[in-house]
Amino acid sequence: MSSCNDYGENMMGENISDTGEFGLIKRIHDIIDKNASQGRKAYLGIGDDCASFSPKEGYQLLVTCDSVVEGRHYLPRHISAYDLGRRAMAINISDIGAMGGVPVHSLVSLGLKGDMPTAYVEDLYMGFTEELNPLGASIIGGNITKSDNVFIDITLIGEVEEDLILKRSTAKAGDAIIVTGFPGESAAGLKLLLNSESGDDTYNNALVRKYNRPAHRAREGRAVAMSGYANCMIDMSDGFLGDLGHVCEQSRVGAEIIRSKLPLSVELKKASVVLNEDSYEMFLSESDDYELIITCPPENIDKIKKTILSVSDIPVSEVGRITEHKENISLLLPDGVRRDLVSVGWDHFSK
Amino acid sequence: MSSCNDYGENMMGENISDTGEFGLIKRIHDIIDKNASQGRKAYLGIGDDCASFSPKEGYQLLVTCDSVVEGRHYLPRHISAYDLGRRAMAINISDIGAMGGVPVHSLVSLGLKGDMPTAYVEDLYMGFTEELNPLGASIIGGNITKSDNVFIDITLIGEVEEDLILKRSTAKAGDAIIVTGFPGESAAGLKLLLNSESGDDTYNNALVRKYNRPAHRAREGRAVAMSGYANCMIDMSDGFLGDLGHVCEQSRVGAEIIRSKLPLSVELKKASVVLNEDSYEMFLSESDDYELIITCPPENIDKIKKTILSVSDIPVSEVGRITEHKENISLLLPDGVRRDLVSVGWDHFSK
Repeated sequence: MSSCNDYGENMMGENISDTGEFGLIKRIHDIIDKNASQGRKAYLGIGDDCASFSPKEGYQLLVTCDSVVEGRHYLPRHISAYDLGRRAMAINISDIGAMGGVPVHSLVSLGLKGDMPTAYVEDLYMGFTEELNPLGASIIGGNITKSDNVFIDITLIGEVEEDLILKRSTAKAGDAIIVTGFPGESAAGLKLLLNSESGDDTYNNALVRKYNRPAHRAREGRAVAMSGYANCMIDMSDGFLGDLGHVCEQSRVGAEIIRSKLPLSVELKKASVVLNEDSYEMFLSESDDYELIITCPPENIDKIKKTILSVSDIPVSEVGRITEHKENISLLLPDGVRRDLVSVGWDHFSK
Repeated sequence: MSSCNDYGENMMGENISDTGEFGLIKRIHDIIDKNASQGRKAYLGIGDDCASFSPKEGYQLLVTCDSVVEGRHYLPRHISAYDLGRRAMAINISDIGAMGGVPVHSLVSLGLKGDMPTAYVEDLYMGFTEELNPLGASIIGGNITKSDNVFIDITLIGEVEEDLILKRSTAKAGDAIIVTGFPGESAAGLKLLLNSESGDDTYNNALVRKYNRPAHRAREGRAVAMSGYANCMIDMSDGFLGDLGHVCEQSRVGAEIIRSKLPLSVELKKASVVLNEDSYEMFLSESDDYELIITCPPENIDKIKKTILSVSDIPVSEVGRITEHKENISLLLPDGVRRDLVSVGWDHFSK
């Protein structure tokens, strides 16, 4: 699958209207049966009024839902159905992982246009199962409806031991702030995609792939939670500063970020030149990277790095400290100047 | 709330774009805090990466999701936001009830237009909580996104003892077929609504209200499941014949319906004259009534009637028998003629 077209242009093959609702449900069944992992089975899967399963004794259940809407979260000409399926599922898996949990069961609700190719929906499901299978999680239910604006709304259920759950509201003044991977790359990928001319081969660009097929850090998040070394964890879906803002707001703390410690990838730096953007700003502002922000007592930094290294090869960087200055985030520049990054609402920040 | 307008015409007051995403989430928080029942609290509600709760020991979890899409499932000029909220939640509650379960927690995912009045979203949530409160269930999470086509996708989680769960796949040849209420009324209400001229006062018509604000039978379904007298149960969202078809398909049985026993309400009969439609056909075909179809050994019919009477005053009618003729549904007419109702797909039927 090396390129993708706007499905509207694909007039060959069978459309959803031809396949019909019941036909489509049968196709989806087949894909799930053939491709799903042999993980924990639901007591009742697709086909009754509800799906049903036995929760694991002594565990908390985690539930998250996230939707992607055509035109708002993606453009069909810029992403294949398979990647879109992976992306939509990965962002939900990321939420479960960011609380230290393990995904178990999923429900998928789709709003589809009648003239969409049936193969498009099958590819979506191939993407969903591709993300769920390595984790032993499965799709146990869902809903299909017609909609003029295509949407994918996924509910993902996970489980976690109550004493291991990692929240946004438990960061402590003095904690180190750690990030996984290279935040900002997804935003750079999106900008490259939107700036590209039709015919450009952006599809295989490393940053565009970061945007189109983000990696979740559920395995890393689970390992961190099980280690007991962290105080707080969140995944980055509103950008580094947006999500650090959520931590500060809910934990009633502040943060000091050291600019020279921010992990900027080589690709991000190159793209910032092409895009004429400040690479630090791309790191800090809105970006769908689904990396983790973790806070921990300073003496646990190396232990957390080792914990993550034991399950993954993604880089882990210490970038600052949690402070007592409630909801105030500052950036320490190399010349010693401190820049205040606090803003209203956390979804935008003042320079 | 005695009438409703297309929200597009409401240019007074605050719009979602003015309120902003974070502002809107805060408003929703407030409504849930103020109006929610004091039922079982979630361990973690809205505000973290996931919602979290402790499942009750020894219970199965039931999960269902159902969406309503503007233009497809409702027209804003025909239904108020409050009724739409009630309706969207009731159809999910119905699914939990039809398996004998009790709703516990809900997640609401909304796709909204920026120019919608903020009050419209608040009214939706008033409708959601109005349906959940009497059952002690609560909203613990969700998602808001922009969408050109408004959608409400609700995930509802319930619980049920494993040995009490009532499925579609367990009807037995010889079982009596029982229905609650007056199926077909919702379809008649929808037709009256669509045939009405602007200015007609259809809003308070009994059948239109049946369509706009369907009652779920979760209490009745729960009582039937706890009684142990039934073999099979399903709620009617595809019409009587559509859902009986699901039972026959999944239980590998057939059914014989006795036309003279079908409970046709006085209102349905009156509407069938106005609409120039056959009242039996309105009973049998597509209609969103959310009444229950129950099958049970014939000796349990009266026990089930008494069970339902102990929690509710809705009428309960025996309308036919489950047979061994796999997936074949026939209608017995008063003159002794038997009409075959089998069709492809169960979503349409041949006359």
